[in-house]
Amino acid sequence: MQGTVIYAPGDVRFEPRDDPKIIKPTDAVIRMSATCVCGSDLWDYRGINPVTAPTPIGHEYCGIVEEVGKDVRNIRPGQFVIGSFFASDNTCPICQAGYQTSCLHREFMGALGAQAERLRIPLADGTLVATPEVPSHDLIPSLLAASDVLGTGWFGAVAAEAGPGKTVAVVGDGAVGLLGILAAHQLGAERIIAMSRHESRQKLALEFGATDIVTERGDDGVAQVKELTDGLGAHSVIEAVGTQESMMQAIRATRPGGHIGYVGAPHYVQLPGAELWWSHTHLHGGPAPVRRFLPQLVELIWKRQIHPGRVFDMSLPLDQVAEGYRAMDERRAVKALLWP
Amino acid sequence: MQGTVIYAPGDVRFEPRDDPKIIKPTDAVIRMSATCVCGSDLWDYRGINPVTAPTPIGHEYCGIVEEVGKDVRNIRPGQFVIGSFFASDNTCPICQAGYQTSCLHREFMGALGAQAERLRIPLADGTLVATPEVPSHDLIPSLLAASDVLGTGWFGAVAAEAGPGKTVAVVGDGAVGLLGILAAHQLGAERIIAMSRHESRQKLALEFGATDIVTERGDDGVAQVKELTDGLGAHSVIEAVGTQESMMQAIRATRPGGHIGYVGAPHYVQLPGAELWWSHTHLHGGPAPVRRFLPQLVELIWKRQIHPGRVFDMSLPLDQVAEGYRAMDERRAVKALLWP
Repeated sequence: MQGTVIYAPGDVRFEPRDDPKIIKPTDAVIRMSATCVCGSDLWDYRGINPVTAPTPIGHEYCGIVEEVGKDVRNIRPGQFVIGSFFASDNTCPICQAGYQTSCLHREFMGALGAQAERLRIPLADGTLVATPEVPSHDLIPSLLAASDVLGTGWFGAVAAEAGPGKTVAVVGDGAVGLLGILAAHQLGAERIIAMSRHESRQKLALEFGATDIVTERGDDGVAQVKELTDGLGAHSVIEAVGTQESMMQAIRATRPGGHIGYVGAPHYVQLPGAELWWSHTHLHGGPAPVRRFLPQLVELIWKRQIHPGRVFDMSLPLDQVAEGYRAMDERRAVKALLWP
Repeated sequence: MQGTVIYAPGDVRFEPRDDPKIIKPTDAVIRMSATCVCGSDLWDYRGINPVTAPTPIGHEYCGIVEEVGKDVRNIRPGQFVIGSFFASDNTCPICQAGYQTSCLHREFMGALGAQAERLRIPLADGTLVATPEVPSHDLIPSLLAASDVLGTGWFGAVAAEAGPGKTVAVVGDGAVGLLGILAAHQLGAERIIAMSRHESRQKLALEFGATDIVTERGDDGVAQVKELTDGLGAHSVIEAVGTQESMMQAIRATRPGGHIGYVGAPHYVQLPGAELWWSHTHLHGGPAPVRRFLPQLVELIWKRQIHPGRVFDMSLPLDQVAEGYRAMDERRAVKALLWP
């Protein structure tokens, strides 16, 4: 088969790779229906995470099951399935508590390289969620979004305790931030402040349920959020970037007693203990346990109640994956969908 | 009157101070029944917080109301009262959400100097809780403990979501940590791991409800907690020290999805963003909103269901306050009670 391999910062290639096979009896192999480029892939592409050898890349996926191992019970060939960016058994105490991305037997799907024509899925019964039937083509972008970016925004909103009566601020207008807005809206938030300076992203934010737009960043942005909230700050803040500046913006925009859901993977972030302590905020986040939310998210998409696929503003044949990276790196695209 | 003034690290004096007076119509003045030395006072005494001029000190108090301002409605002269280490109006949106130590009109009681014969209490109606009648003498230590150290341990346990079915680990065997154990026990925790290497403190920990003792610190202590919890870590960890080492110990001893209640005031602590993010923990803490818990705590003490006063293992006349500081600094005492 063909798949995507990153060789070095800025150097992504689509090239022959070994066909995935069943290795363990709990594996499945899927034929990719769609995959995409994640904001977190850009950490590698930009050289912020080191790339020391040619490495398969990509961790968002949905597709048709081709083959399952002999111990797989619930997933069958022919089903259309979506899974999280971490494989998980969904039975260990950590999974049962809803933290499948910290599963005792987790495997990062990125290491298997999902930007490819086919993909091996470890722990198939625990990892995959099947749709009621093979979806119509127009549903696929939204179902693909559930694999990571929607589930991550959703976890950000849940971790920030977005809900009725709450004012939610969202730091970051990438795909995760935008879907955090969608999630906060679905969870019943009263007011949703999108922090964005890009017109096209503001537009999507408003479509997803944002009620206010703040264009300032950093402490100026914080001042604007306070101005909109009687000087108190937001009840809930979703942090969807992962930089020092965005984390401080999130902490400072939250009122005492409020909740921060931080889902941007922190890079070189140090949180000042005393400031965080005095802020009186709740801080929760991490790699989103997408699997916790997948059944609910798939159902909402299946019933066409949410349309997270709208975050894909670029669509390419999979063999043009390198252009997807370039477009996202240059912020010409929010998120690039790849069709095998 | 006479009161305590800190002049420099290691230099605490009991000396004449101006009598407190009603300044604002919402003030009260109390005659001190008992006060004490807080672990956080030692940050000043040890020169970790700078002391640049002679400063009144002390923020834990209970006593008899002598006088109230003309706008005070609920507190009356003759009542026995306890208040938090921050005065608060108890009516602003932040107070109403239960975060009275971040009240929009808060005043730190330490600035007024509670290790004294009398004390002005701002925002008396919001700050003070009166007992049903003047307590018998033997109840006073426990009621005094409610002013800070019990309420702080309690907040740590609440922030860590201690409760039925939970394994709680407590980092720090000072008075706050010990009362965090008491709180976790009251909140119904199944198992409580005290991290302590001091025999007398271990004994009190067990009296307060600890089920296990871990004597190792740092990563060795973490390994012991994991050993006691099937390799997973505790559900809930109370951090009651405030150093870099104790915070990392708390984060690493918590299982993914677990909760850390950090109530030790962080000094020169930097939290590594990536490690915290991958830990999947919930982090909440800050200056304990003692006022939220005071009515419940006073009731438990009044009914003699809890005996937090046991943390006072030294009792001195107030004019010997300097010896109280010395004893705590040298770890000869957990906590020194001062009788005017």
